Amino acid sequence: MFLGHYLVVNNSLRTIAEDGDAVVILDQTRLPKQTAFVHLLNLEQAAHAIRVMQVRGAPLIGATAAYGVALALREGIPLEQAIDVLAATRPTAVNLRWALERMRRVLEKSAVATRRDVAWQEARTIASEDEEANAAIGRHGSPLLQAVQRRPVQVMTHCNAGWLATVAHGTAIAPIYAAHEAGVDVHVWVSETRPRDQGLLTAWELAQVDIPHTLIADNAAGLLMMQGKVDLVIVGADRIAANGDTANKVGTYLKALAAREHGIPFYVAAPVSTIDFACPKGADIPIEERDAAEFGEKVSRCGTPVANPAFDVTPAALVSGIITEQGVFSAAGLSTIKR
Amino acid sequence: MFLGHYLVVNNSLRTIAEDGDAVVILDQTRLPKQTAFVHLLNLEQAAHAIRVMQVRGAPLIGATAAYGVALALREGIPLEQAIDVLAATRPTAVNLRWALERMRRVLEKSAVATRRDVAWQEARTIASEDEEANAAIGRHGSPLLQAVQRRPVQVMTHCNAGWLATVAHGTAIAPIYAAHEAGVDVHVWVSETRPRDQGLLTAWELAQVDIPHTLIADNAAGLLMMQGKVDLVIVGADRIAANGDTANKVGTYLKALAAREHGIPFYVAAPVSTIDFACPKGADIPIEERDAAEFGEKVSRCGTPVANPAFDVTPAALVSGIITEQGVFSAAGLSTIKR
Repeated sequence: MFLGHYLVVNNSLRTIAEDGDAVVILDQTRLPKQTAFVHLLNLEQAAHAIRVMQVRGAPLIGATAAYGVALALREGIPLEQAIDVLAATRPTAVNLRWALERMRRVLEKSAVATRRDVAWQEARTIASEDEEANAAIGRHGSPLLQAVQRRPVQVMTHCNAGWLATVAHGTAIAPIYAAHEAGVDVHVWVSETRPRDQGLLTAWELAQVDIPHTLIADNAAGLLMMQGKVDLVIVGADRIAANGDTANKVGTYLKALAAREHGIPFYVAAPVSTIDFACPKGADIPIEERDAAEFGEKVSRCGTPVANPAFDVTPAALVSGIITEQGVFSAAGLSTIKR
Repeated sequence: MFLGHYLVVNNSLRTIAEDGDAVVILDQTRLPKQTAFVHLLNLEQAAHAIRVMQVRGAPLIGATAAYGVALALREGIPLEQAIDVLAATRPTAVNLRWALERMRRVLEKSAVATRRDVAWQEARTIASEDEEANAAIGRHGSPLLQAVQRRPVQVMTHCNAGWLATVAHGTAIAPIYAAHEAGVDVHVWVSETRPRDQGLLTAWELAQVDIPHTLIADNAAGLLMMQGKVDLVIVGADRIAANGDTANKVGTYLKALAAREHGIPFYVAAPVSTIDFACPKGADIPIEERDAAEFGEKVSRCGTPVANPAFDVTPAALVSGIITEQGVFSAAGLSTIKR
């Protein structure tokens, strides 16, 4: 695998890094066919990268938005304007708003003369903290896999919540990486994740480190659980409400219902920055509707009307635990998390 | 819409018809891009059409197999050999074996000199009976839609169980056609149905008769139900076990679980020929594994290992009713069906 020199920082694969005056990202719309890099030089390029999903995954969206603020200030764009542009790119992932609020808070108390430097430093810190948080998610989640009797442990995931969805290490995939590094045999059922097929990103990631995996149609999840072929499910999150209801890539909810039906533990893995303590419950989370073009040419050629909600909400009652950098929490236990 | 002169029989659109010495089918692998016809002239062409899904849908597979026996006898191929070849094409749909058994039964008691004619006549009868059965399914199912208060009635389906899946009229879609003809406003949520995208066939069918519909990713079914956007679900079946457990296109089970969670009626529509009274329960139904190539070029280019089970089993407890040509039955009521 060639990922260029940009994206290996402290021996970790990263999705975003600084390169002189620019912020470099791996263009995920071209994976797995191509590994191509994009240099972000200004606010509009950063906003575009989030909007068209060159970067995706709640934690990575947050880090990219933080760098977007730094780029904007360098252009002389007012802070509030930069925040407005970036906040409007994607509605569901709370890490976006979380990162922007954090930038605002830090920058508002900085002397005007130092703001540009402070913005770069804070974006850098947000990125590093995400990397550390996800490594900790791996450490806290790995024992859940190790506790399974069967080898290989059969894990099912949905969408891509690997290192590509974060600054480094991933969220849902972090425990899989950690267990694999600890010598545990793991096999991963990777859902295709229509309409954007992010399962191919997960398969690509797992192939890089030789973790056995099998791609399935999203439709096959229930059958595999019924056949006893799944030991646990781990998914990421785009926003976790204060009561534990979890918005994640559309289709997550169907897997959670099937997991409960078959007594299979269903875990959500996310950094604390994905928990929206100001959002009481799942019904309060806005669901992004994306363009019909995401279904691809075969569908658009038909001219069929399309609905494309990008997320769904899994009620807390279906979630066995939420794996964070502070440990594994029940929904009820979220209130004890240090913010 | 141009469907040629072949496929309008008694003013009904049909998927299969006789044309002189040949059996003509609509090649469903080329829909919705092209309406192309294939002339089946011998056993191998009939078996190939079933195997590669030029014809698909349990009832249509049965009718095609019956015609395949007639074609084989005309070639001088022994009856048992013809049955073996045709039975091996697809493992899950019971209508295939049902039609072949019926052909065997009728032909075994025919004088050798008349067998070729009897075979054609019996295949013709099987096709006509399917057409009539599905029209009756429409009549029995339509009141279920009319009983819903909301207009348009919001129906969700999966895969294609329209006229393309049968000789005519369809199974799951037959009640929708009947309600539409009775002047009921209906809107249909059409699942894409990965990996083969049969939802596009359903969308194409509905567009021909101006029934409003919206294509969704299979993943979106749970969200739409949670949002109160679905009044009832109707799906077809490839085999119904004696206890009511139903094998249908993979992904059906996930929809059934979500429907139960939200108190949404979940109906299976199928002719009596789809009920396998010799099969006690769903776990006894073989699940066909199909080729990874069905996922398309985007996936095959990645070289990712793929699992592709084509069906799943929905337990009878999740099925609100089974709509047949004899009426709507509960799972427990199946034993009262006239065979």
